[in-house]
Amino acid sequence: MTPIPVAVEPERDEHLVAAVESAGGRVAPLDEARALVWIGSADEFPELPDTVEWVALKTAGIEGFVAAGVIDDRRKWTNASGFYAENVAEHALALLLAGVRQINTAVVRHWDKDRIDTAVRSLRGSTVTIVGAGGIGASLGPRLRACGARVVAVNRSGRDVPGADLVRRSSELGEVWAATDHVVLAAPDTPETRHMINAESLGALPDHAWVVNVARGPLVDEAALYRALVDGEIAGAALDVTDPEPPAQDHPLWSLPNVIITPHVANPSSGLTRELAPWVAENLRRFAAGDELLSLVEPGRDY
Amino acid sequence: MTPIPVAVEPERDEHLVAAVESAGGRVAPLDEARALVWIGSADEFPELPDTVEWVALKTAGIEGFVAAGVIDDRRKWTNASGFYAENVAEHALALLLAGVRQINTAVVRHWDKDRIDTAVRSLRGSTVTIVGAGGIGASLGPRLRACGARVVAVNRSGRDVPGADLVRRSSELGEVWAATDHVVLAAPDTPETRHMINAESLGALPDHAWVVNVARGPLVDEAALYRALVDGEIAGAALDVTDPEPPAQDHPLWSLPNVIITPHVANPSSGLTRELAPWVAENLRRFAAGDELLSLVEPGRDY
Repeated sequence: MTPIPVAVEPERDEHLVAAVESAGGRVAPLDEARALVWIGSADEFPELPDTVEWVALKTAGIEGFVAAGVIDDRRKWTNASGFYAENVAEHALALLLAGVRQINTAVVRHWDKDRIDTAVRSLRGSTVTIVGAGGIGASLGPRLRACGARVVAVNRSGRDVPGADLVRRSSELGEVWAATDHVVLAAPDTPETRHMINAESLGALPDHAWVVNVARGPLVDEAALYRALVDGEIAGAALDVTDPEPPAQDHPLWSLPNVIITPHVANPSSGLTRELAPWVAENLRRFAAGDELLSLVEPGRDY
Repeated sequence: MTPIPVAVEPERDEHLVAAVESAGGRVAPLDEARALVWIGSADEFPELPDTVEWVALKTAGIEGFVAAGVIDDRRKWTNASGFYAENVAEHALALLLAGVRQINTAVVRHWDKDRIDTAVRSLRGSTVTIVGAGGIGASLGPRLRACGARVVAVNRSGRDVPGADLVRRSSELGEVWAATDHVVLAAPDTPETRHMINAESLGALPDHAWVVNVARGPLVDEAALYRALVDGEIAGAALDVTDPEPPAQDHPLWSLPNVIITPHVANPSSGLTRELAPWVAENLRRFAAGDELLSLVEPGRDY
């Protein structure tokens, strides 16, 4: 089969070049290319020859490209939202498992077996509630189920979520907490979600619960969270996001042994093309086979 | 349906009683029981009435019961090896993800975004080699694959391992290391496995590799591991077992930022019946339905 000519622009990033070649493509100048992998910004986006049938963008949000008027309906466009969702889901699982298996404690209290042995829990047989079950929730569900957890997805509409055992509407959250072992927040920051983790929801959760936030800091009332952690109302909190970021150096959450805070790295900005490369390769294989592409942008949809 | 009478002895542990009732059984005295959940030792094991069709033991190894001559072929016997394998597999995944996602660093270096953002990796698209792919390996494989990793299982015979993408023989390990991103040790401690992680294997692994040990401490040459970690030959090590245990308080591994050590808690001894309860409930449901039981002991097999 003739290798598919793919342009990698505005620079020939080594990871993406390797991905193109691993998927049976060859890197070519734009005017010979059938596909373009674009890792630049919206304002430097080039004029496209008609030969380009597919453009792969490296971002999840593509508002900038829509605003710049570069997205047209003469070819296929993909963003990387699926890639980012998988990456954030992995970080959420890592945070939850680190808490449940007491790895944060083990790092600072060397071989404190008495304390750690009694505190370690298992995800097996537990119920994990994912709030805001979009792409991240859909990616996290199968990971949790592989660990033997039951997955409850919560979204506004109650629409089906792939990989969830049960879907509940946001309006039913009051009943959901007591039947939840652990919570993962993966919802956008809106007036409705702001401080959804508050004194009331924390009081309703069981005392062995871990709260994981990989979404946005304002979803959690941090003052209420601090009190719940000190009072033992929940077991711990693992946060990749805070409000504001970074938290003040003397923020009381830093002083608690049952808090894990990672510095908003669920989607690390460094090493991005290296991590993105297998995703691009997979989409190129699909392009070559005529299969549907991952993370297709729907033209005309409001981003 | 009449509830199945189940004895829970020598004490009526609350978690196991709840498990029996949740699975449609009722707790009964031994002389009325069709099944016995035994959480005592081998030497206090009671004379069994003929009505007992199934005995559930809480341990993984049942050498003590075999030696005491209590295992007979007049009923079914189950141990908890499958339960323990799942639990250890979860701990292995937690350790690997904590390392790859830099949670150990985040716990001690507050919001050190520059360092952490560049060091975070993803399991997606990576190759994880599990050495000693018995029950733990078979339980870990599906968890890793749900995270998008490719799983290579290594065992002596090269026999098929459920959930592995590829199986290699122990004798081929020399070729396996260079094609491995991360290693999980889940093999018994034998003359052949002793110090299998040594200067040579550490040198063959890529510099982004994490080495996870949930098996036995002597599988790792700790002096060679220390040098490899200091020299940056691998990215980190996450150990639930050491040689000896606990490591000396001034053991040099404690001083390294890229080491996670948990105090042999992959199977915590406290809270055991609470964690075991869903497993017992599942087996009771199978017993009631006439389905094959999990972790059946084969009478006459040499334990």
